[in-house]
Order: sequence, then C-alpha cells, then structure tokens
Amino acid sequence: MPKTGPDTTPEADAAPAPAVSVLGQNQYGKAEVRVVRVVREGAVHHLRDLNVSIALSGALDDVHLTGSNANCLPTDTMKNTVYVFAKEHGIASPEEFATRLARHFVTTQPSIHRARVRVEEYAWDRLTDPAAGPAHSFARRGGETRLAEIAYEDGHWQVISGLKGLTVLNTTDSEFHGFAQDPYTTLPETHDRILATEVSGRWRHTWTEDTHEAPDWDTSYRETRAHLLAAFAGTYSLSLQQTMHRMGSRIIEHRPEIAEVRFSLPNKHHFLVDLAPFGLGNDNEVYYAADRPYGLIEATILRAGHEARIPVDHSNL
Amino acid sequence: MPKTGPDTTPEADAAPAPAVSVLGQNQYGKAEVRVVRVVREGAVHHLRDLNVSIALSGALDDVHLTGSNANCLPTDTMKNTVYVFAKEHGIASPEEFATRLARHFVTTQPSIHRARVRVEEYAWDRLTDPAAGPAHSFARRGGETRLAEIAYEDGHWQVISGLKGLTVLNTTDSEFHGFAQDPYTTLPETHDRILATEVSGRWRHTWTEDTHEAPDWDTSYRETRAHLLAAFAGTYSLSLQQTMHRMGSRIIEHRPEIAEVRFSLPNKHHFLVDLAPFGLGNDNEVYYAADRPYGLIEATILRAGHEARIPVDHSNL
Amino acid sequence: MPKTGPDTTPEADAAPAPAVSVLGQNQYGKAEVRVVRVVREGAVHHLRDLNVSIALSGALDDVHLTGSNANCLPTDTMKNTVYVFAKEHGIASPEEFATRLARHFVTTQPSIHRARVRVEEYAWDRLTDPAAGPAHSFARRGGETRLAEIAYEDGHWQVISGLKGLTVLNTTDSEFHGFAQDPYTTLPETHDRILATEVSGRWRHTWTEDTHEAPDWDTSYRETRAHLLAAFAGTYSLSLQQTMHRMGSRIIEHRPEIAEVRFSLPNKHHFLVDLAPFGLGNDNEVYYAADRPYGLIEATILRAGHEARIPVDHSNL
Amino acid sequence: MPKTGPDTTPEADAAPAPAVSVLGQNQYGKAEVRVVRVVREGAVHHLRDLNVSIALSGALDDVHLTGSNANCLPTDTMKNTVYVFAKEHGIASPEEFATRLARHFVTTQPSIHRARVRVEEYAWDRLTDPAAGPAHSFARRGGETRLAEIAYEDGHWQVISGLKGLTVLNTTDSEFHGFAQDPYTTLPETHDRILATEVSGRWRHTWTEDTHEAPDWDTSYRETRAHLLAAFAGTYSLSLQQTMHRMGSRIIEHRPEIAEVRFSLPNKHHFLVDLAPFGLGNDNEVYYAADRPYGLIEATILRAGHEARIPVDHSNL
Repeated sequence: MPKTGPDTTPEADAAPAPAVSVLGQNQYGKAEVRVVRVVREGAVHHLRDLNVSIALSGALDDVHLTGSNANCLPTDTMKNTVYVFAKEHGIASPEEFATRLARHFVTTQPSIHRARVRVEEYAWDRLTDPAAGPAHSFARRGGETRLAEIAYEDGHWQVISGLKGLTVLNTTDSEFHGFAQDPYTTLPETHDRILATEVSGRWRHTWTEDTHEAPDWDTSYRETRAHLLAAFAGTYSLSLQQTMHRMGSRIIEHRPEIAEVRFSLPNKHHFLVDLAPFGLGNDNEVYYAADRPYGLIEATILRAGHEARIPVDHSNL
Repeated sequence: MPKTGPDTTPEADAAPAPAVSVLGQNQYGKAEVRVVRVVREGAVHHLRDLNVSIALSGALDDVHLTGSNANCLPTDTMKNTVYVFAKEHGIASPEEFATRLARHFVTTQPSIHRARVRVEEYAWDRLTDPAAGPAHSFARRGGETRLAEIAYEDGHWQVISGLKGLTVLNTTDSEFHGFAQDPYTTLPETHDRILATEVSGRWRHTWTEDTHEAPDWDTSYRETRAHLLAAFAGTYSLSLQQTMHRMGSRIIEHRPEIAEVRFSLPNKHHFLVDLAPFGLGNDNEVYYAADRPYGLIEATILRAGHEARIPVDHSNL
Repeated sequence: MPKTGPDTTPEADAAPAPAVSVLGQNQYGKAEVRVVRVVREGAVHHLRDLNVSIALSGALDDVHLTGSNANCLPTDTMKNTVYVFAKEHGIASPEEFATRLARHFVTTQPSIHRARVRVEEYAWDRLTDPAAGPAHSFARRGGETRLAEIAYEDGHWQVISGLKGLTVLNTTDSEFHGFAQDPYTTLPETHDRILATEVSGRWRHTWTEDTHEAPDWDTSYRETRAHLLAAFAGTYSLSLQQTMHRMGSRIIEHRPEIAEVRFSLPNKHHFLVDLAPFGLGNDNEVYYAADRPYGLIEATILRAGHEARIPVDHSNL
Repeated sequence: MPKTGPDTTPEADAAPAPAVSVLGQNQYGKAEVRVVRVVREGAVHHLRDLNVSIALSGALDDVHLTGSNANCLPTDTMKNTVYVFAKEHGIASPEEFATRLARHFVTTQPSIHRARVRVEEYAWDRLTDPAAGPAHSFARRGGETRLAEIAYEDGHWQVISGLKGLTVLNTTDSEFHGFAQDPYTTLPETHDRILATEVSGRWRHTWTEDTHEAPDWDTSYRETRAHLLAAFAGTYSLSLQQTMHRMGSRIIEHRPEIAEVRFSLPNKHHFLVDLAPFGLGNDNEVYYAADRPYGLIEATILRAGHEARIPVDHSNL
C-alpha cells in the first residue's frame, strides 16, 4: 500500500513550492541484450554475435509523473523482440538489424516517437577451413568491437557506425616539438617517439531516407576501417592531432557515404626508459608503457557542407 | 624524415578532391591525473584523493592541419599544473579545484578559449578517532564516486556535480503492472518486487558568474545526495521512472542552487526464483540478481524556467 | 553424429602412443550463483547478498575419458540447490550456508567425495532507521568483499574466511631505508612516506570436526577484520612486510579460532611529486597515486604448532 | 618516531602469549612491470610487449619481524633490472627473458634462494607488409594473452607456459545427456548445443636442468596452441570435460617437451531462446549468451610417469 505521510528530509523542511520542476528529455529501454544468430549452410555454419541496447522516447510523461504504465511497453518485451527478429529476419549486419528494430517500435507503438538502437558486434574467426569439410568452429577475434547506433524519428534515419578498442602503434616516424611553453612546462622535445593509441571512432552516414538505397553496411565498415588504419600507418606524425586529422579526412575523401567522423584517441604514452644511471644509452629500444595519466585527443572531421551531429564526448572522461 | 610518397589505399584510388573535409569541434588535454593532497593539522591529518581530466579548446587548427604545435601547450604541462596548484592552493573541494584550473588555462594561454575540467573524488574514512590521539590512518570508502565537471568560456561558468556507482535497493513497496502490451509481451505483472539501481546522476548549478558568490560545494553535494537517497527510500514505486522523477524533483524543490538534474538508472533486476518445481513457494524471499540485459531509465528534471544543458547520454549504452 | 575420421594436426603426425597421458586432479561445478535472501521481520527487512561457486570432485574419470555423464550431476542442479537451500534454511552467514551446501553434495551423491564452496558476500547498509518505521531500503557498502571457502572431504572440514578490496592508507609513520643495494639500485631512502595497500587476506579456522561446536562466523569475521585494521593503523612501519606481519600476528594472538593467516598486499605507491622545477618544496603534501608497477608483499603467519594449508598464490600475479 | 604504547584492541584485551605466531612462506617483488622492446632491422621493426612480475623468497625473516631491510633488495631495483636486461639481452621469448631474470636474482643476492617470474605477453600484428617498404606499424591482436611462469631454486628450473582469454565456440557437434539426477534436477537433455569456453591453460615443460638444452619456446607455444585448438574443433563432444581432456591429451601425445597440462574452462552457456510464446520454433538458430552463473570445468592431464606440479586453482573462483 502506498505511503500516505510525507517523506522526511535530511534538513529542516520548508513546504515545497508546487510545479517547481519540469520533466525534460527522457528515454527508457532494454540494454545489453546478448544475441548470437547461427546460420547453417550445410556443414558450413555462420554466426553473428551482438549486444543490443534499445532506448525509446515519446509520450511517456505519465509514467514519470504518476507511475501509470499505460504507454510503457515493458523493456522485457524489447528483449523478446530482439530474439524474434533475429529468428525471423536474421542479422545481415548490425546496422540493418538495428534499423529494423528501430522502425518497429516507432511504427507499432503510438506512444513511441523516437527509437535509438545501439549495437556492439564481436567478431569471430573460423578455426577450420570450410573447403576442408565441416566448419562450425570459431575463435573470438579480440581487438576492436564494431559499433552501430541507429536513431529513427519523424521518418528520418541517423546512422552512426564505428569501433572501439583498436590499439595501434608506430615505433617511429613520430615527433613532438615546437610546442607552447609556460612556467610549468618541463617536457623535453623529441624527434623520434613511439606513437600509440586505442582508437575509438564514430562515423555518421549521409543516408537518412528510406527513399534512397542504404549503403552496403559491411563493405562500408571494412573499407572505413582500412582507411583509418592506412592513414595511421602512413602518416609521418608531428602530433597525434595531425595523425588523427589524416585518419578522418582520408575517410571523408574516399568514402562518399560518410558525412562526419569523430575520434577520441588516448595518447598511450610509451616513455623511453632512462638507462644512464646504469651506464647505458637507450637507442630507442626500451620503453615503459604507462597507464595514467594519458593525453586524450578528440576531434570531428566533417564533409564540407555537412553539419556535426555526433556528440562531442563519447569517452567518459 | 617525413615520407614523400602518397599513402597507399586499400582499394583502387581516385585523386581526392581538395578541401573535401572540414575540421570541426576538437579538444585535447591530460586525462586521469591522480593527485592525493595531505593536510597536516598537528597529529590529525586530512586528505583528498582526486582523478583530474582536463580538455582544452581554442585556436588549435594548425596542430591538426599541419602538425605545428606552436599553440599547443603539452598535456604534460597540464599534469604539472595540477600538482603545483594542489601544493599552492590545496584542494578545498573538487569543484573549487577544477574551477581554479579551468580559469588558469583560459586566462594564461591566448590560444585556449574554453577549458573543461572533470574530477572524480574517492572518499576515505578515518580508522582512528582524532580525539584519541594521532589520526593519520584511513580506509577507502568504496561505493559511489563523487563527480564534478567545470567548463569555462567567455567568462562564464558551467558547473555540473554528480556521482556514480551508488547502488541502492528496496526490498518492497515497488510494483509494476498496467503496462502496454504487444504480441511480444510475456512479462507477468507484479505487485511486490525488489527495486534496485546503481545511481549515476549529474546536477547542474545555477551559478555561472564570478560576480555572484559560489555555493558551498561540499554542503551542496552532501545535501543533494541525501535528498536523492531519501526520495529513493521514501517513494512507493509504481515504476522506476516514477522513483527517478521523485529523486530529481525533490532535489529541485529543496536545493535552490541546482537548475537541472539528469539520471541514468539501470534497473538492476532481481528476479524471484521459481521454486515450484521443488514443491516450494517463494514468498518474496529468494531472488536471483541478474547481470544482463537490464532496463535503463534516463531523464532530465529541470527547474521551471531553466534550459537543459546536461548531455543526454552519460552512460555508454 | 560423432566424427569417425581422425582429427587433423597442425604438423606432420606420428601415430600417438597409447596411454601416454593420465588424468590428474579434476573438479567441476557452477560458479557465480548470485542469490539475494530477504527476511521480513514485520516492516523491518534484512538481506544477505551472496555470490556462490561450487566445485565437486570424486569418481568422475568417465566423463573425461568417454563422455559418459552417469556420475555427473549437472551444474544447473547445483544452482537450483543454492536457491532451494536459501529458501529452506536461510543464510545465517557465508560460512554456515557454504557448509550446508558442501555437506549436501558429498553425502547425497555417491560419486562426489569432495566439495569446495566459495562465497563472496556484498554488504549493504540501511538507508532508514528501523526505529523510525518501515526499514526496507539499503545502499551497497562498497569497499571490501567478504570471502569464505569451505572444503569437505572424508568427514573433515577446512574453513577459510577472508576479505578482498579493503584499501587502507597511512599518511605518515612509515619509513623505508637501510635496504640491500646492487648495481641497479637507484631508489632513495625515505623516512616519511605514505603507506597504502589493498588488503587481500585469508584466515583458516581451527575448526574441522562436526563433533566440536563451530565458531560464531559473523563475530569472528568482524573481530578479525577489526584486528587487522587496528594493526595497520597502530604499527609504526619500517617496511610493508613488518606491518603485514603485525596484522597477521595480532589476529593469531587475539583470535584463538584462527590457525593461519595469509596476506597478499600490493604496495600501492604514492610518490611525492618533485616540485623543485617550479621553485617549490613538497613538504609531504602532494602525492601521485601510481597504478603500475607496484610492490607485492605476501606471507603466511601461523599459530605455533599448526601447518600451512592456505595456497601460497591467491593473487593472479 | 616509533610508537611506544601498546596498540589498542577492539575488545577486552588479555595479555597475549609470547611467540604464539610463526612466520610461514613469504615472498615479495615488483608486479606488472610493463616493458616494450623494439628491434630495428633497417626499416623493418620488431617489437615484444611484456608485463613482468617478480617474486623473491629467501632469508627474509628480519624484514617481517623487525623491519630491518638489510636483506631486502628494493622492488624498485627489480623494475630497473627488467629494463636493463631488455636493453642488454633483448627479449627472445617470455620464457627466455624470465629465465634470465630469475637466475640473476638467485645468483647475485645471497639472501634470495628462490625466484619466480611471471610474464604476460601481448601480441601485435603488422599493419604494413615488410616487403612493401617501411614496416613499423602494428595493431594489438586482442584475444588471448600468452603466459609464462619460471621458478628457479637450488639450481633447478620449473617452466610453465600457457595462455588465457582465448574464447572458442562450436555451433554444433556437442550433446549433454544421460547425466545424474537428484530432486533438484530440472535441466532437460540436449543433443545439439553450442559449446563455448574461454580457455585458460597452463602447461609445464619437462626441462629443469641447465645441462639439457631448453626447448625453442616460441615454437613450443605455437604448436601447443594449435593442438589445443585442433582438439577443440575436432572433438565431437558429449561433455565439456571430454573435450577438455582431449585438448590436454593431444598436447601430451604430440609435444614431448610438455609434462603436464592444466585447464580451467568456464562453460560459456549459450541458451536456446524459447520462441514458442510467439508461435515460432528455434531450429538451433537463436541463442542467448549468458554471463552468470556458468559451469567451471578444471582438470590436470599428465604425461604418464610424471607428477602434478601446476597449482589446482588458477582461476579466482
């Protein structure tokens, strides 16, 4: 039975003014639905392994203000829908699967006006060659996680693809000097350092309307990833900012389906160990991989004529 | 020596159009500077334990476009500044310390127009009573981490305080029923469930100008935390949304220094175990604490007349 | 249908000799069963929150050698048993609950000769005063996790209690000097440093037979924890080893139910920041809390006349 | 200055008996020294990336009992030694590098009688083809971590190699039925399930004496890993125990340098989703990847005539 008395306050209490507060943006949904979809093509099996998170918004004030759930589809139902759709439609790609889910909630629930679906995909490599016979064994690849975020509202799409956890390192062709100085600056300049980062990147597609054909999402992901790696490896670096900008601009130059790129790149410092106390030089051979603190370098690179839509902070720091 | 040849592409390469890409928002800084500041008041010691992350923005296009670091203060210098300021000014509160840092970078570096400083604070409890003699022993409290984010630009402040990792649970006075249904709905209604969440909350202060006196940050934090806990414990809940709204509105009602509150609350499901196969009822006594998936409930509660400024997504999902 | 052909090898294959390998120690079970047990005493509720892991050993060669599961109780059944026992018997303490489970599997399954049950317990604090009315709201305490490991075999018990994740710090009364030196030693001596560690401790009880009365497990845990904290806070330290030894020997001296203590203590280094480049002394006020590497100090302290039984390595490094 | 008064106890205190406690096994060292070693072969660079943890034992009672550090080489010195040895001798393999370190501490420090060195190695893949020009760019592979643990005492070696974090999955050719049942058993039998695990494995080498030639550690690791994967993929499984036994016995059969294998394999449950409420069959296509609880299956497989030496519990549960 609901309480009838007032709740107690941690300090002397004045009668609160009515309507002093207003409900703002709100969303709800089921997070981290883990679905593995197997396709059996004779003895050759295929699988896709996703972590799906759904967030819905709309005419939901009542559930906040009065606790009436009449407009509130349970998050448990969203979970069920993920599994039913995986069965009925398969998982062609994270973006395709998320698009189907987002459209479903907005078009079937009158109270839901906007759906945002986020997907993490974990890649698996085959352990055995399909040409050699049965092929149903896999090892999880590790390394980066592929990401997709689809939003659907008023009949328009916003599709952001990306990845996180891709750690890359150049052992040379990186310098850092000529920087600004103030009374607290003690850093020496360097003309040959390790440059390493764990790439967290997002890229927004130009595609927004059902009337246009959507990209081939898997091809777009594979090529975009290849371009950012090629730019990381191929850029002679005077700063991590410069390398990052080349990673983003190369994607914009080569992938017309991409409107915007955002990176958050920790500078994973590898410090040269000072071996002078032991009568030794280092010769750029022995490094200490530091944990904290680290530089954090972030930027958006846009296709000319497009507006920025990817949120600025996709790291937590 | 910089490479002179073109970088190679993962596919047949067309000559890229010039200026097809534009640099958008960018920021850089040192993340996760761990500083512990001790104050010795005779035999009674005090300490504050922070994790500080700095992000600066301004006239920094050159470092991205050409690799010129002339406007780029090294992130190593930011780290040094944290330690020097801890020595010279002490750490009165996370907000006060972050404010001092943000002002410093904007007012001393001509190329820096905006500074954002984020702080995590870890709380410690005394192991020995100061009244009983020497008091220099502490245990880390665990539980929630206190948060502060200060932004400074054009002479105006934006101060967001908050916390994360505060896990709370009601064993009763929580129901969930009368919800919307569709063909994928199988969830039974419940009139007595455990309600549990791990609170991640942020609240923005009305204070923005140096010409006004800033709040007592530690008092504000302590009282705001107490109000959100009192609302969680004191609300008879028909949905987590309703409880969350009461947590936010109670803060707005009682703490005039707060303009806006944002919560991201995972519904940490505790499912009643079905003991019927063993000839037993459960009587709301035995629960399975589930990991994934989980509901995720998020909202902004505003003081009437104020605009929302806290970013919508401060979870990663 | 089982494969009939030989498995392929990654290299040229010689016919393997028969019986070249022998099955050694083996165990199996369900790990990390999360159970929350509520007791309703009128409006005042109580809860215990456990993570239970079971490992059984015995006449289980067949399941390894031929895949016959005839002696193999499913791990799913172990999970069910945890929930049924929580309902029927409640959870008086981690040790009592684990003891009941271990006895059950050994005495009811002929093929099971040994049971080991590990429990993690998470502590919760009340948010509201039972004296003031309804009391069913809790906050998870954070900080340390209480541990228990019970083994049962041949009618004898071995009970190890403990904790992990208890971070403690002294701001003074710690020195480190007079140490051994070799050509690679550069560390300066110090006469006043921060001493901090994250305590991981285990203590074995003398109780082994049903014919003797078991200790009051909750009292024993509370008092043992208090003694180790009192020794940490009260010892003037010339090395972390010395402090650790005092923590263990104090438990042995004051708690007759304990036969053996084992600690694994990372030296959580807090380095004095060198402020000399900025014209400042430090005065033991500003410290950098380092992550890696760290000292790791481990020892067993025994009651005279008892043998060591706690495994040497309970850290992973 | 050391305290002179007695420490206080949390309860009524009796005079403790003298010498009631005895110091048992103890060890100390530096943990998690992160070293990256680069070798520059013209434009083609090579790197090895290690996390090294050292634990030393010997005549160290004084540091525990009195705080005298005369026999105690600082852990900071161990860290320095890692870096000096990386420079002077390079890193041919984790085992070779750890062996050199262990021998050094035991043979140069009279008080040190035993050294144990643990190494984690992180693998990196090249981003660019050495045949195509400069090759100094790498991506961290992710997936498993290679492990080595070397102990040296009384002139004898014990070398354990291994890996952790290798997640593998078969989509078919796995059954589980015919198991023991008790009143708490509700699990249905299955004749076609996903079998998945995250391999944590250790294997001990027969090599113990300097008078014999040591194995080629990198070849041994590569081949052992290939055999365990081939056995996982090629075994038609009636239980995870059976698959695990085949993984171990195949290594023993094919790799004469290995005396003993130990596995700790979580059964990473992938449950078939029940789609019947939605009028659908599943057809082994849609799975829910569960987190907790999980089965945990562990065993030692020995070469006939050899004794077990790898500790039984190398998981934490």
